[in-house]
Amino acid sequence: MEPPARPVIALDAMGGDRAPQEIVAGAVRAVHELDVDILLVGRPSDIEPLLPDDAAGISVLGASEVIAMHDEPASAVRSKRDSSIVRAAEAVRDGKASAMVGAGNTGATMAAALLRFGRISGVARPAIAVPLPVPGANRRQLLVDAGATVDPEAVWLVQWALLAREYARVRLGVDDPSIGLLSNGEEAGKGDRLRKEAFGLLAGVKGFTGNVEGGDLARPSVDVIVTDGFTGNVALKTIEGAMLGLAGLVFSVLDEPEWGEMADRLKLRMLEAASDLLPDNTGGALLLGVKGVCIISHGSSSAAAIVNAVRVARDSVAADVVARLTTAIAESETLHAG
Amino acid sequence: MEPPARPVIALDAMGGDRAPQEIVAGAVRAVHELDVDILLVGRPSDIEPLLPDDAAGISVLGASEVIAMHDEPASAVRSKRDSSIVRAAEAVRDGKASAMVGAGNTGATMAAALLRFGRISGVARPAIAVPLPVPGANRRQLLVDAGATVDPEAVWLVQWALLAREYARVRLGVDDPSIGLLSNGEEAGKGDRLRKEAFGLLAGVKGFTGNVEGGDLARPSVDVIVTDGFTGNVALKTIEGAMLGLAGLVFSVLDEPEWGEMADRLKLRMLEAASDLLPDNTGGALLLGVKGVCIISHGSSSAAAIVNAVRVARDSVAADVVARLTTAIAESETLHAG
Repeated sequence: MEPPARPVIALDAMGGDRAPQEIVAGAVRAVHELDVDILLVGRPSDIEPLLPDDAAGISVLGASEVIAMHDEPASAVRSKRDSSIVRAAEAVRDGKASAMVGAGNTGATMAAALLRFGRISGVARPAIAVPLPVPGANRRQLLVDAGATVDPEAVWLVQWALLAREYARVRLGVDDPSIGLLSNGEEAGKGDRLRKEAFGLLAGVKGFTGNVEGGDLARPSVDVIVTDGFTGNVALKTIEGAMLGLAGLVFSVLDEPEWGEMADRLKLRMLEAASDLLPDNTGGALLLGVKGVCIISHGSSSAAAIVNAVRVARDSVAADVVARLTTAIAESETLHAG
Repeated sequence: MEPPARPVIALDAMGGDRAPQEIVAGAVRAVHELDVDILLVGRPSDIEPLLPDDAAGISVLGASEVIAMHDEPASAVRSKRDSSIVRAAEAVRDGKASAMVGAGNTGATMAAALLRFGRISGVARPAIAVPLPVPGANRRQLLVDAGATVDPEAVWLVQWALLAREYARVRLGVDDPSIGLLSNGEEAGKGDRLRKEAFGLLAGVKGFTGNVEGGDLARPSVDVIVTDGFTGNVALKTIEGAMLGLAGLVFSVLDEPEWGEMADRLKLRMLEAASDLLPDNTGGALLLGVKGVCIISHGSSSAAAIVNAVRVARDSVAADVVARLTTAIAESETLHAG
């Protein structure tokens, strides 16, 4: 009997602050560690010199253009048709790959997936589901939308809640995920116009527990926190900045001479204890609502970050995430139509 | 020659999770440490048993009602006319006190100040200016609006920027404060509808440097960060939660047996190094845009928090903050009319 075919993950070799070196290094590690094949998409002349002699499991898909971090996403995706991220999305659309992973311009990665995959029926706009680490707790929390769609309508937040609840089952391994609406107070009446309208609509969504506050993010509270892409992006970066600031303070205390050699050991131990919090280890964010698996890794992704993102892509394919999300939305529509 | 009269600060004795005990204790400390008199506002039967025999500098203003933390702010202020926070605001309006301090229901404190003081001419809505600590840097940053006004119009953000810039001179001691607009990216085109409109209007405000991101909050970046009250409230609580989560992780590492007795000394040293970050030490937030000094302290204020908030109230009076803010807005209007 032949072994089952390994899933192929299309990887944007040109995307990210440390591309193509770290991306290609991540691809090499991924094919060894993860039982996947990798389709590296980008300029062959940039990629091929970085590949080892035996690059079994890795193939290269040529793309002559690159969308830079500062390019305006939607117009770049339209004008740069031979860009690595657009070609990666097309590889998935055309069945040459099962999923795509990109660490470049987030907006462009999202736009490429949206335009080439199309939307799941019943989903108005996509949303990014970022797994937030919860310090000290061996678990994660999904923040949705972390930046895909600003100025959403209230009903879109309901769609994202339904998608995120189903995705939380796969990603977090939680049977019955709880959902909170990020607001400026826990009481039901709190919020701006968008939140007040969304609160009423979310009341009918299974698992919805009400409003949560900023202090419930990255904390042991609900499994899924739903918000608009503007607030979600601000909150995500606020968490990173606040933790970075406090970590700097802790390390500056440990740099004081009186702690001696123990300080170095403590630093290492703290970095180990906090390794879950590092963006490289989150495994990337799934773009919810499109008809294909698109994993967004952070801009400064190292090879390790790429391996983790490819793992999430592989697991999403294995769990048939897109079909599950499609069913979750369809069932909800049947329910509301009935 | 008579000594100059000490300023009188009206203090809501009934407001806050730890009222009236910690509030009254704070008042007793404040009159000793700060060269102010305190007008304690609330139920005399709750306050007087807590006062020492010699309570020189403290007087009590009776108010029979209390607005609770969960009361709906605007309607509570309208219906509870003999509540401590409403009476405190009236004491300032009527010249019996120079400023008010409240640690109770934030919305009610704000509403009482707004309704009894009125708005500064040219200011559509008030905003809360919270001084964020910047870990490791001996400085603070103003976050405006931290929760007073959700769903603002873009031009209100400009008014808050003007007010906050002037206030930053007093509170932060910075001659030429820089201002950033909180957005989901640094580039000029980033943001939701509100941000895009505000960005254009802010271009004419002195000190405006462009968009900043969540990662610039509580970090050495601009002096003033402007946002709507919804996002500001979420960001403020997100910072607190993220730092709390990471602090818990650091302390759990220090609780591991291998660090021995040094761990306890390190914990103390870290708490000392981080003391600036504790809400009790921020000194409270000024309500910008009303015709009187109203300082909002956090809900779980201790006596030390009250002393710090009273100090900020005293300094705001001494610096004639309301007049300065009034002039800042008026000059800007002249400029734009010219």
